[in-house]
This record gives sequence, structure tokens and C-alpha cells, in this order.
Amino acid sequence: MIEYYDISGCYILRPWAMSIWEILQTFFDAEIKKMKIKNCYFPLFVSPGVLQKEKDHIEGFAPEVAWVTKSGESELEVPIAIRPTSETVMYPYFSKWIRGHRDLPLRLNQWCNVVRWEFSNPTPFIRSREFLWQEGHTAFATKEEADTEVLEILELYRRIYEEFLAVPVIKGKKSEHEKFAGGLYTTTVEAFIPNTGRGIQGATSHCLGQNFAKMFEINFENDKGEKAMVWQNSWAYTTRTIGVMIMVHGDDKGLVLPPKIASIQVIIIPVPYKDANTQGIFDACAATVKTLNEAGIRAEVDSRDNYSPGWKYSNWEMKGVPLRIEIGPKDLANNQVRAVRRDNSAKIDIPMANLVEQVNDLLNNIQRSLFEVAKQKRDACIQTVNTWEEFAEALSQNKMILAPWCDEEEVEKDVKARTKGEIGAAKSLCSPFDQPELPEGTLCFASGKPARKWTYWGRSY
Amino acid sequence: MIEYYDISGCYILRPWAMSIWEILQTFFDAEIKKMKIKNCYFPLFVSPGVLQKEKDHIEGFAPEVAWVTKSGESELEVPIAIRPTSETVMYPYFSKWIRGHRDLPLRLNQWCNVVRWEFSNPTPFIRSREFLWQEGHTAFATKEEADTEVLEILELYRRIYEEFLAVPVIKGKKSEHEKFAGGLYTTTVEAFIPNTGRGIQGATSHCLGQNFAKMFEINFENDKGEKAMVWQNSWAYTTRTIGVMIMVHGDDKGLVLPPKIASIQVIIIPVPYKDANTQGIFDACAATVKTLNEAGIRAEVDSRDNYSPGWKYSNWEMKGVPLRIEIGPKDLANNQVRAVRRDNSAKIDIPMANLVEQVNDLLNNIQRSLFEVAKQKRDACIQTVNTWEEFAEALSQNKMILAPWCDEEEVEKDVKARTKGEIGAAKSLCSPFDQPELPEGTLCFASGKPARKWTYWGRSY
Repeated sequence: MIEYYDISGCYILRPWAMSIWEILQTFFDAEIKKMKIKNCYFPLFVSPGVLQKEKDHIEGFAPEVAWVTKSGESELEVPIAIRPTSETVMYPYFSKWIRGHRDLPLRLNQWCNVVRWEFSNPTPFIRSREFLWQEGHTAFATKEEADTEVLEILELYRRIYEEFLAVPVIKGKKSEHEKFAGGLYTTTVEAFIPNTGRGIQGATSHCLGQNFAKMFEINFENDKGEKAMVWQNSWAYTTRTIGVMIMVHGDDKGLVLPPKIASIQVIIIPVPYKDANTQGIFDACAATVKTLNEAGIRAEVDSRDNYSPGWKYSNWEMKGVPLRIEIGPKDLANNQVRAVRRDNSAKIDIPMANLVEQVNDLLNNIQRSLFEVAKQKRDACIQTVNTWEEFAEALSQNKMILAPWCDEEEVEKDVKARTKGEIGAAKSLCSPFDQPELPEGTLCFASGKPARKWTYWGRSY
Repeated sequence: MIEYYDISGCYILRPWAMSIWEILQTFFDAEIKKMKIKNCYFPLFVSPGVLQKEKDHIEGFAPEVAWVTKSGESELEVPIAIRPTSETVMYPYFSKWIRGHRDLPLRLNQWCNVVRWEFSNPTPFIRSREFLWQEGHTAFATKEEADTEVLEILELYRRIYEEFLAVPVIKGKKSEHEKFAGGLYTTTVEAFIPNTGRGIQGATSHCLGQNFAKMFEINFENDKGEKAMVWQNSWAYTTRTIGVMIMVHGDDKGLVLPPKIASIQVIIIPVPYKDANTQGIFDACAATVKTLNEAGIRAEVDSRDNYSPGWKYSNWEMKGVPLRIEIGPKDLANNQVRAVRRDNSAKIDIPMANLVEQVNDLLNNIQRSLFEVAKQKRDACIQTVNTWEEFAEALSQNKMILAPWCDEEEVEKDVKARTKGEIGAAKSLCSPFDQPELPEGTLCFASGKPARKWTYWGRSY
């Protein structure tokens, strides 16, 4: 999937990973085009004056900004920043382009790289100094339109995780402490990695309110001829999606790829025997791959003659291909193939006559089953608590903890301080949209004040 | 198409331009996937040691390299370069990944941004400090395979220009002086801009030979068990393609977009009259756009009520939409629409019954006609010369000059020196693959030595 690079925190996305990114990109790009969102491309570079215009925003990003100060042998007159995100890159032009209510909504997206020069624990896909993403930036005449879009985009992010990557996520809202720097509110899809007992922010859809509009003077004349300020959103998902999928499904043998995003869904391996009809087996493999490809299934034959079938089995298991088809002398004699599932090692003999139908069924089944298994594992990690003692106990067991909370920023900071330790402090993950009942009189698990909502807490990436 | 940005030499690609890039990308990406070339993504950053490994190569790029020296408030220990191109980024890993002949060919491509901090005349699309491109990097066991791919890719570049952008190009080979820094030979598709009398390099496909393989130790064990060095290619086309198209087809009214790359191929404009059936006209517009969209034609209705039809005509002409459809009371009465071509202003009444067929014909016709007209204009600028006097005269007339040449690097430098002037010196553009006959005894136009080939010369971008 990746190769380590000679600059720390940078990674090479090899074709096996890139093809997953391309499948997610094709889906999302088509969906946002249906929503009349248009692609564009803004520069990689930001001038310091613009970058620093929104105070909270730059405070959030300043320590991670990479600066270009030289070209060739010459010092630049003014250092130039590399975008960590493009709010400040784009919004001066939103101000220029938006004049009247007919210029709204303005809905742009770009697919690009961004740079955040983090020093803590670079991890492939999850925390890297450069990563690929899409970033949407939109402006509306009313808050209602902005609110609606925030949720429409969040639903696309849920579909990327649940329908494509087979990773269960929880939709919710970030706390004031965890929201996007400079924004009004942040919605998120949160995943959880049972093996490490950590939550991970999957993708975020922000309502920026009118804060950036004020700083960048993005005004318009409304339909009554009055001057008004726009309401803005920004939203992004990154190559981190791939990392989450790897961590959720991987096992001792290596990767496990959901069929929908696997660039090879079915690997066909000839299993010749010394006395058997080798040519017949190779012909059957060729016929099988042709039939599957024609039915739109991504299949390949591994006909390398310098590796044994057993070596190939392990190799493709390690790479995570969802389904292996073996064709040996017995299969040839019976006019069948043997299919072996990557996810649960189940073996199924498939008559050639039913090939496409049964392979499609199996792939659908694997996709669904990966999601169900991941959901069961995730659900088993969720613990509901009411008191600090229960919370501390659940945290020591690396749980994803649902607790009633007073929703005060100082209390969240206090929870962080009280749980600080070698493996990291707990923080709020999100307040789920799907709220359990909160009986009158329920108290905050941390402050003892009246609770205002249920919120997920845990250690996180 | 673009917006100027507050950092000189950087430009914003607005959706109208980006959609053209996406159409070219979809075509090229599908074609290289058929050739089993795989997409990947390598980092934006290069460490100085690697960047400087190939001497000729870095000499070509060093003056334009942007350097990151700071992150947040901290100085980096070692400055880090931003890729101007990715040979030196990728090839250390080619060396790692390639072991035996079964690892070959290795054929990778990436879609990304690169940075060349040029100080001379930044021009939108044509010469910018950051631009988008694809860069292909491949390694083969034999020179024959590499040579074949060089030409296959060049043919795709020709198709991008001629079939999509309707811009005629000449396929040929660059001189030693103009070839890619560090490569073996460079092939090119060269366009010419009649209005400015300048040639422009359209896209290049390089055979790198074994030069980088030597520097980066990219070796393999061949099928005889001997150690051998790979043969490499690299090839790229950039957003410059869009700039060439704009310059070749644009006229006094603005852009002229070939139908194949226009994100709106047909703009439908209602032309209501005070006493007429306005609702009927709007209904007819809606029916027309529906019929065209269902036939796969990219059509939209401009139903804005705050602009007159005349204003809309000019607006969409300026944006270059290939075909305008007007629907007024008379058209409604006759069950027809009026179509107006952007390229030659011809007006055609189309019965609703023949709508799809005739619109398709018109779009095909416009595509072909744009190419033919551009080719006639380009051909009228080509002048064949034999002597320095003829050459100097043709250059003063801003021609694309075909001349017999001795193919010596010193002579090319001398031509540059002798033609230096305010509007730039002449240089060799390419030696066309399609060579006219070169009679025995023909002499070089510049040196008087025996000529070895016909070569195009001119001023260029």
C-alpha cells in the first residue's frame, strides 16, 4: 500500500492504495456534481497576510505551517506559506466574486494536497505531513441552506465509510473545544479502532457561520436590496479514510479489502499437478477471468511460473484480495472452480455455469459481512457510563464511552487534565445525532452539573 | 477561466477551466490504464541530496526550485525542495522495487502539482509557478520497449491537442540543446500561435535512456541471470494545453471552445416578447434541454430574469460556448429552434423533430471546422527556407520556419546568438518525424555544412 519516504512523515501511495483513493474519488465527485458543486483549483501557496487574517483559525494551524523562503539561490522578499487548508486561500476571491444574491450559492470543491508539518508520531495514512484530500468551500444567502448542506455532505462521508470501506461510523457534532478553528460548528463521522481502543475522526463537515465572511468581507446585496453577509461551509475527507479501513479490517495475515474498493476483487490461481492437464487448467483460468471481467467484476489471473500456488495464496491474502479462485485438475474434471473467502476462509465450490451469479453473491456477502463484523466489534467496545468512577474504569479498558455531559468547555479541559497519562488523555469524540433519552435530573459524569447531552469520549488518534 | 492570485505567477483555475482539465484527464487516464500504467502518488517534497544526484538534471532545474526552510517558528535542520518534476523523487524507490526481470516493466503515473519558481514573464496557463500535470515514469528491460512507449504516449498527446482541443500539432524530436535535462532524447508535439508568431511546446515524451538508472542504481537480473540496467521514460502534459487552445481559437468576442471539451456545449436562451406566450417559450426551453441532456449533449438553459437575451448572447459568446439555441415566439409557432454557431456565427433553424440529430451534426461540424481553420492558419505560417537570408526574412515575419540543418549544438547556440533581440531569439522547435526529402548536397541554412535533417525553427513561448 505505502512505502516509507526519506523525509519523515511523508509516504508514497503505491498503486494498490491509490486505486482505493480513486474509487472513493469517483463516487464522491459524481455525488457532489449532482449537488451542482463545481471543481476548481486554487494555488498551493498562501501569502502571510491572508493566512493570518482569521485569528482563531491561524492559531489552530500556525505551528504546523511549512514556509518557503528561498527559490534557487535567492531569498524571497516575503516568506510564503504552503496551504494547510484553503479557507484563507479562497475567501478573498469569494469576496470578489460574490456581489448579489444571484451569485449565491457559490459551491466549489478541489482535489489537492495539503501540508501540515506535524512533529508528533507521524503514521502512514493517519497522520502525515502531506496528504491528499478534497476540500469543499461553499457560501449561501441563508443559514438554513448552509445547515442543510452540512448534513448532506456528512451523509456522503457516512456512505464512504459504511458502504465502501465497510467501516461503521457515528454521526455527531464536535464539542466547542474540538470544533474547526474559526468555524461555527463541526459535524463529524467518528470511527473506532477496537484493537487500539482509540476513536478516530473520519471526516468533518463544518458550518463556518459568518466568521470568515466578516474577516474577508464576503457581502452581497440580498433580494430586498439590503447588504448582507454570506453563510459558509467547508468540508473535507482525506487519504486517512484508507488508514481507518486498514486498521478496522486487517488481521494476522495482512490486509482485508472490502470488495467495493478492491482494485482486484477476485484473484484466480492455477493449481497444476505434475501429471495433470496443465494447459487445460490455464485455459480454464483464462475463460474464468474473461467471464468475470465481462460481467464487470475486477478479476485477474496470477500465472507467474516462478511461484508455487501456496506462495501465491499467502501473497494475495496479505494484499487483502476479497476472493481467491483456485482451479486444479479436480475442478477442471468437475467443470467447477473453488472459491476461498479472504474474510473468513470459507471454501465454496462453484459450478462454471453459475460463476458470475455466485461470485457476485459472494462479493456482496463479503462486503456486508465485513461491515457487520466490524460493527459488532465496535459495538462491543461502546460502554455507557454515568459517573466518573465508571468512566475511569471504562477508559482503562480502552472503551468508547457514552456519558451524559454538561457541555462546558472548562469541564472538557478538566477531563483531559485528569486523564493525562502515557497513552494519552481522553477527549470528547462527538455528541451523536442519535441521542438516547436523557432523563430529567441526569448529572454530568465529570462535573456533577445538570447534563445537557450524551457525548462519546475516549482516547483518539 | 482563471483569476489572478495575490502571489505573482500563481493563478486560480475556475470551474470553467477546471472542467476542461477534467475532460482531458478522463480521456488520458483511461488510455494509460489500458496500457497497464498504474496511478500512484509520491510526496511533494524532495531532500536536497536526492535532488542533486543527476548533474545535468539538477543544472536544468536548480534555479527554479522553491525551498522550504521553516515550519511554524522553527528552522528545519535541512532545507527541503518542492518537486519541479519527480524523477529524483521516484527513482530511489524504483531502485528498491526492481530486482528481477519479472518486476519489469514498472509503469507509474501521477496526477499532481509541481512548482517551478520562474521569474520571466509569468503568463496564465502558459508559464506559471505552480501548475497541474500528469507525469508518467516507466522502466523497461529493453530500449525497444522504451522507444515504443515514448511514441505511444506522444500519440495520446497528439490526440489531446488535435481530437479534443482542435489544435494542430507537429510531432517531432527536440534538438540536443532543447531536450530534457538528463535524458537521452525528447519527443514533442509542437503547436504554433499565428497571432503572436510563436511556437509552443505542447507536451513531451522523453526517453531517459540509462542515465538516471546509472545514478540511482536501478538494476535488475535479466532472464539469463545477468545484472542489467533498466531503460527509462518520463512524459508529461500540463494545464498549458488549455492555454494553447485559448490562444489558437480565441477571437475578438472572447473564448471559442471546441465542443468536445466544453462543459456546456449548448446554451439555450429564451427570447420572450411582451405580448407573446412567455410560459410556452420557457416550457419549450425546458423540453429542449431535457431532450438534449438525455441524448448525452451537455446543454443548459439560461433562465435568469435580470438580463436581456442580447446580454446573454454576448456573455455566452465571451465564455466560448460552441452553440447557442434561441427560442422565441416565432420558433414556438413553427415548432423549431434557432441555432447560432460560436465559431462562424452561422444561423440554422432546426425543427424540434430533428433536434438531437442536427445538434449532434452541428457540434461535430464545429469540432472539425475549428481544427481545419486552425490548421489552415498554422500552415499559412509555415515557411520553408534554405539560406540564412531567407531564414532571417521569414523570422522577421514571425513564421514557423522549416530549414535544413546540420544538427550541431554549437550551430543552434549560434542561431540563438545571431537572432537575439527585444522579442526573443529563434530556437529549434523540433525535427518533424514526417521529414520532407533532403536532396544529397543540401546545406545547413545556418552553418553551410552538410544538412542532416529538416528542422522547425522560430520564436517560442
